[in-house]
Amino acid sequence: MIYLDNSATTPLHPNARAAMLPHLTEIFANPSSAYNQARKVRKQIDEARQVIASTISATSSEIFFTAGGTESCNWAIKGVAEASKKGKHIITTSIEHPAIINSCKYLETKGYDVTYLPVCEKGFVNPKSVEFSIRPDTCLVSIIYASHEIGTIQPLAEISKVTRRHKIPLHTDAVQAVGKLKVDVNQIGADLLSISAHKFYGPKGIGALYIRKGVNIAPLLHGGAHERNRRAGTENVMGVVGMAAALQAVTAELPKEQARLTALRNRLIHEVISSIPHTNLNGEQGINRLATNANISFRFIEGESLLLHLDMHGCYASTGSACMSGALEPSHVLLALGLSHELANGAIRFTLGRETTDDDIDKLLKVLQPAVQKLRDLSPLYDDYLQQLK
Amino acid sequence: MIYLDNSATTPLHPNARAAMLPHLTEIFANPSSAYNQARKVRKQIDEARQVIASTISATSSEIFFTAGGTESCNWAIKGVAEASKKGKHIITTSIEHPAIINSCKYLETKGYDVTYLPVCEKGFVNPKSVEFSIRPDTCLVSIIYASHEIGTIQPLAEISKVTRRHKIPLHTDAVQAVGKLKVDVNQIGADLLSISAHKFYGPKGIGALYIRKGVNIAPLLHGGAHERNRRAGTENVMGVVGMAAALQAVTAELPKEQARLTALRNRLIHEVISSIPHTNLNGEQGINRLATNANISFRFIEGESLLLHLDMHGCYASTGSACMSGALEPSHVLLALGLSHELANGAIRFTLGRETTDDDIDKLLKVLQPAVQKLRDLSPLYDDYLQQLK
Repeated sequence: MIYLDNSATTPLHPNARAAMLPHLTEIFANPSSAYNQARKVRKQIDEARQVIASTISATSSEIFFTAGGTESCNWAIKGVAEASKKGKHIITTSIEHPAIINSCKYLETKGYDVTYLPVCEKGFVNPKSVEFSIRPDTCLVSIIYASHEIGTIQPLAEISKVTRRHKIPLHTDAVQAVGKLKVDVNQIGADLLSISAHKFYGPKGIGALYIRKGVNIAPLLHGGAHERNRRAGTENVMGVVGMAAALQAVTAELPKEQARLTALRNRLIHEVISSIPHTNLNGEQGINRLATNANISFRFIEGESLLLHLDMHGCYASTGSACMSGALEPSHVLLALGLSHELANGAIRFTLGRETTDDDIDKLLKVLQPAVQKLRDLSPLYDDYLQQLK
Repeated sequence: MIYLDNSATTPLHPNARAAMLPHLTEIFANPSSAYNQARKVRKQIDEARQVIASTISATSSEIFFTAGGTESCNWAIKGVAEASKKGKHIITTSIEHPAIINSCKYLETKGYDVTYLPVCEKGFVNPKSVEFSIRPDTCLVSIIYASHEIGTIQPLAEISKVTRRHKIPLHTDAVQAVGKLKVDVNQIGADLLSISAHKFYGPKGIGALYIRKGVNIAPLLHGGAHERNRRAGTENVMGVVGMAAALQAVTAELPKEQARLTALRNRLIHEVISSIPHTNLNGEQGINRLATNANISFRFIEGESLLLHLDMHGCYASTGSACMSGALEPSHVLLALGLSHELANGAIRFTLGRETTDDDIDKLLKVLQPAVQKLRDLSPLYDDYLQQLK
């Protein structure tokens, strides 16, 4: 199996597994209970919170555990919108994850007005366009940190200069950034930041929302006094300790891994594009791209068909966000870059991870070229193209 | 360790552990992905959904996975309220879990009107009081199935006759019922039903909401198309399979365990009340009480102090809901029964489980009597009482 879908999810880090195993056996007390065994569990949660906080240069009282990236994003958008006294205008981008877009679309049904900023052909938001879009009633700006589809890393430090000047909270969906980049909430100037464990070798079903001290936000889940009265529900203790162990481990590996993966990804991009005609890289080629992401359009064919071929050879990749799979429309992210429907439909996202090796890339390349050729041989679009050449 | 707090949480069932372990190692694909490995994971989710569904006599398309009981209850209350065209009146009870009460309190801040039905001194809701409270604008009735504090089982089959006649959806918080009772959504006439895995020997951080076909409900979490577009977020696969395995196992054990636990609980109640003066059972003594629950008030003392004594001897119980622990006010459930503040503050909830033995009860009884006596010897209330006797 050649797993090149690490932005969809990742295998569990051995350290996360080790941290979680005792919670499958002897540790089970409810951390909200008063007795000794429960206080030990509470302490583990506190320690995990401290790990997450220090990794992103926050304080532990600014970290709130959630059930994952989707809940964190929903909470950030809806919670800040609800608590704000400024008004009902939100600024976001046209390349967000569905958790952000659909939270915004929901708020539009409740009388909110949402600006979806365009991006350039490489996928970047212009900080000036953020500033132009700010209105007196703007209550929140939400910008994805690193694209789940094309890996572009937004200029958040520049954007936050704008939001701070206008005293508007800035949320960033950092689901694809944390664990892949050195994330510092102060350096980027984020006021809220969403995290999902299973994107960085932690378990599924657990995430966190960073909420800077002083930011007003309404709870999304009401009930018990968990998470300092801001997020009710018995803590997913095993998830929490697994997330912290995974993040600690990948953070330690990060500098080495970033260099290794950048080289590996560059090799993948270079070899695909130089050996297979009519291909192009979507997004930026330089340093403002996640080391793990290669998104390549294969002209004249359907990405979905190519995935099927790769699957038959044990190569796993995707056409975009796993959260969008099954959708028949082309990726809204790729369309926002200005790609034609044809090129957007012909795109494949290869996302590398800590278990990806040069050998995997070799095997992929061996499978990819004949698969593309086979599909093109069957493609009416390709046939038209060849006819035109004559 | 004598663990008598099984309503706070439960140790993981060995079958749940066995089902979960492969998800800590080789199984990790995102179930929304398109390839073979992902489809296998998707199949496991579907199978788990079928297990949950058949256990409560539902169909699998009526089961939606959530992050736990609190999310399920929040979703049921807020989701039905939002989708309803009937109006903004909700009927619930005065003995609900905070997940229900605080969701209702939240809706009150949004212009909803909530009726909190009283209960009799044994803790039962009168179906007639439900009928009396219905208004043309009533959009939802939500009644806790079995009390988390006193174990009383509500006459839902009677209540649903009323709600059906008035065509109002009935939600029940069945967090303490599922796994402890034979639950049949058709027999009780529930339209929505909330489940939490860690209350029946499954993992924490996973739950489900049963939504009867045809019930209108708005999503709580927006994003990807997961859970048939009703609950976004990558599935907590390990949690889902653990929940289903636990529920399947405890359902098979249920008839035997109910008989065994009823006898054990009756022994506990009888021996405490007959051997320690000034004690009384809170709630009903008969068949409409969970087999696992004994809630006993110890006059003249603080439950919290007694818990500390028990803790020192390795006996774990609680004063009420773990989700309320740390709260200094007496239990709202016990006050709703008409208990004085003194008796409510002196209450201890002992909740038995599948690992509780006669030996545990022996040990508890050995520790309990001297602890109560010691605290009473220090109690000004008890001193006053003795003075009055003279």
